[in-house]
Amino acid sequence: MAGQGGAIESSDTLLTTRILDNAFQSSLESNKKWAEETSKRDADFFPKSAKGQAPQILWLGCSDSRIPETTILGLKPGDVFTHRNIANMIHPTDLSLLSVVEFSVRHLKVNHVVLCGHTSCGGVNAALGNSKIDVLDLWLGPMKALREQHVAELEKLEGAEKATYLSKINVKHGVEQLRRLPPVLEAMRDRGLQVHGLIYDLATGRLEDLHCGEHESAGKKRLAVFETK
Amino acid sequence: MAGQGGAIESSDTLLTTRILDNAFQSSLESNKKWAEETSKRDADFFPKSAKGQAPQILWLGCSDSRIPETTILGLKPGDVFTHRNIANMIHPTDLSLLSVVEFSVRHLKVNHVVLCGHTSCGGVNAALGNSKIDVLDLWLGPMKALREQHVAELEKLEGAEKATYLSKINVKHGVEQLRRLPPVLEAMRDRGLQVHGLIYDLATGRLEDLHCGEHESAGKKRLAVFETK
Amino acid sequence: MAGQGGAIESSDTLLTTRILDNAFQSSLESNKKWAEETSKRDADFFPKSAKGQAPQILWLGCSDSRIPETTILGLKPGDVFTHRNIANMIHPTDLSLLSVVEFSVRHLKVNHVVLCGHTSCGGVNAALGNSKIDVLDLWLGPMKALREQHVAELEKLEGAEKATYLSKINVKHGVEQLRRLPPVLEAMRDRGLQVHGLIYDLATGRLEDLHCGEHESAGKKRLAVFETK
Amino acid sequence: MAGQGGAIESSDTLLTTRILDNAFQSSLESNKKWAEETSKRDADFFPKSAKGQAPQILWLGCSDSRIPETTILGLKPGDVFTHRNIANMIHPTDLSLLSVVEFSVRHLKVNHVVLCGHTSCGGVNAALGNSKIDVLDLWLGPMKALREQHVAELEKLEGAEKATYLSKINVKHGVEQLRRLPPVLEAMRDRGLQVHGLIYDLATGRLEDLHCGEHESAGKKRLAVFETK
Repeated sequence: MAGQGGAIESSDTLLTTRILDNAFQSSLESNKKWAEETSKRDADFFPKSAKGQAPQILWLGCSDSRIPETTILGLKPGDVFTHRNIANMIHPTDLSLLSVVEFSVRHLKVNHVVLCGHTSCGGVNAALGNSKIDVLDLWLGPMKALREQHVAELEKLEGAEKATYLSKINVKHGVEQLRRLPPVLEAMRDRGLQVHGLIYDLATGRLEDLHCGEHESAGKKRLAVFETK
Repeated sequence: MAGQGGAIESSDTLLTTRILDNAFQSSLESNKKWAEETSKRDADFFPKSAKGQAPQILWLGCSDSRIPETTILGLKPGDVFTHRNIANMIHPTDLSLLSVVEFSVRHLKVNHVVLCGHTSCGGVNAALGNSKIDVLDLWLGPMKALREQHVAELEKLEGAEKATYLSKINVKHGVEQLRRLPPVLEAMRDRGLQVHGLIYDLATGRLEDLHCGEHESAGKKRLAVFETK
Repeated sequence: MAGQGGAIESSDTLLTTRILDNAFQSSLESNKKWAEETSKRDADFFPKSAKGQAPQILWLGCSDSRIPETTILGLKPGDVFTHRNIANMIHPTDLSLLSVVEFSVRHLKVNHVVLCGHTSCGGVNAALGNSKIDVLDLWLGPMKALREQHVAELEKLEGAEKATYLSKINVKHGVEQLRRLPPVLEAMRDRGLQVHGLIYDLATGRLEDLHCGEHESAGKKRLAVFETK
Repeated sequence: MAGQGGAIESSDTLLTTRILDNAFQSSLESNKKWAEETSKRDADFFPKSAKGQAPQILWLGCSDSRIPETTILGLKPGDVFTHRNIANMIHPTDLSLLSVVEFSVRHLKVNHVVLCGHTSCGGVNAALGNSKIDVLDLWLGPMKALREQHVAELEKLEGAEKATYLSKINVKHGVEQLRRLPPVLEAMRDRGLQVHGLIYDLATGRLEDLHCGEHESAGKKRLAVFETK
């Protein structure tokens, strides 16, 4: 089966070479192999791909190496527009995030915005700890504020459970922040854009839907404040 | 072979369902399938993955849906720490980028930083155009400054060639910016961290190394200015 | 008295010249006059000033032209370290703000951080309205979130009262955000740094102290979460 | 004359009280005194001020306590819209700066944008040094890049001259960045908005115009690239 498979199989040899000196050169060779196999399997894939993208999903996830969105979703290049940062934080004045949302929601017209946190997140663990981590202390400040706000619930939990709980709170809070961004707000109102919150469980490879739906009244209240003309 | 393959095959059914209403529900089902197959193929994969990450590569790429780094590199979850924004811009005061670099270079100790641009980039095309695109005009401002600086060369080129040329300039410029960031500077000096510039060709699926090496003197000059104690 | 006075008097002629074409040239001439008068009054002022600064106050205020902090505080050059942005917003991941706080609190060791809002604030009015104002919609997003959160109280108020109320909420919220920033947190703990919230009343020229003190328990709770070692 | 003067005189007592414990309480009392004196001198000043602002100048300066723009320009509250950050940096993707420029140029329609650096700037000295200063290393990164670019000229200078030279380069570079921002670009084209670069000499209290004019061709070249429709 080797040589015929997709992402996972084709990198089996890679795992060995990673022990060697140059992960970069190996990755270029691995790309070559992937491109050849993909082209063999579907000669139209790259020519079609070069013509444009029409993803239906915007993925906002963590930079963690273990959660490559397209792989874990079992999807292909072209399916998921992606922004990944440390601990999938949604800072409402982050120009990097804002331009991603603008481009994907207003221009590409994705139908789903997915905010995905995960178990055993290094950023969440940092926010739960008290070690000095320089610029990360700043980036994760708003998550520490969530920790402060939910300190009573968090104190009842231990280790991994604690981290997962804060991951979930962080995602739910992020979903609220996203729904207030002008392009998201307008696309929700005008064409039914949906914003979802997920947790990825590293131990199982499975995504859990946090069901971040809301009552109609909440949406109306938000719209009354954030809508612009 | 269906059911045995990796990322590419497992999403074949997806392509069909994407015509239907709900790309999000489909992606959750596709994730379930992927997780089951991966677990079947390697029962240790997820349990091992849950223990931690040790990626050797930090990938800084475009949010474009057609360039999921782990897929096109033929690699696995756990191999590539990732940050993706519109047009793979390197803004030296972007806290999102800075915290990604801090975490991956100082804490995870990746050995390679890869900045990857691509052909037919929507952000590059926007920077080459003169349409008002709101927040993207701000995000892409520094690329427009590169366009202004290289206007003579760019005017000699047409369409796709022009865009690819600016993509390359943008990557080379970004590599220079990256080498000045404190964590990168120090890791280059102390443990041989390498910063690479690549272009991904959507029409072939292949990565091109832009060979962004530099003379020793350039590195020394930079170190004299940016090194801190 | 003309010619002997300070900031206010010396600009009386300016007011006339502002009707003319060039406010910039006028301001340079006015600076010349101010420098001469100041030097005449205190020959040591500039030589001493050139040796360094030791302000006791960090002022975080609005960019509004009507609230030049040093003037309205009746203070001199050298007394107040200053950062002013639209609507005196405190965004915890704003690198501009963060570097100001770092420099003034950690390096200059100011004893007081003053966050000052004001009546009739254009930014607050924008956050209370629903007009599209591009990049300001993004910058003021977190104030709109405060508006949403306090919509019931705000609906009971009209016009100027409504704006002043939101200004006050915004300041109080900002004070909380400031107290969580690492340099502020540490300086509060180690040397009694104080963070104050004020409102400036444009109609009277007077500052109102919002008395943003807190119970000891609140400080301890925050410290337990945000303190780093 | 005491008690009749403006900003400078009214703070003479302050200087003494600053030795005492509470600079904050003193500043509130000083504000009270200033408001009373201003009102006595011009009963209409505050009522008029409360009605709105129409500044002709946007001041982009350093947070340094010794350079309160309105004071050193010999101007009054209402004359100068102000944004001040560490070392008067112009980062083209800084949302704080961008919202200030948007508000003052597009909405208030100022006629002059003034970028002002100064001698003996702590930020410039930091950029000329190699001490680790955490978040300031990031904020000042682009000034270090200017230092690297101009290392040959800078090496010929010593101490204060070196710092002043880099301050000037930083201002000139900042003026170029400002002219590329959409609101500035458009207002230059449509209504003759001017962007000026200044250096403030702490030892004399005087502003020096760096004459950052440009050839018509430079403006046209920039417009061709940055103009949007």
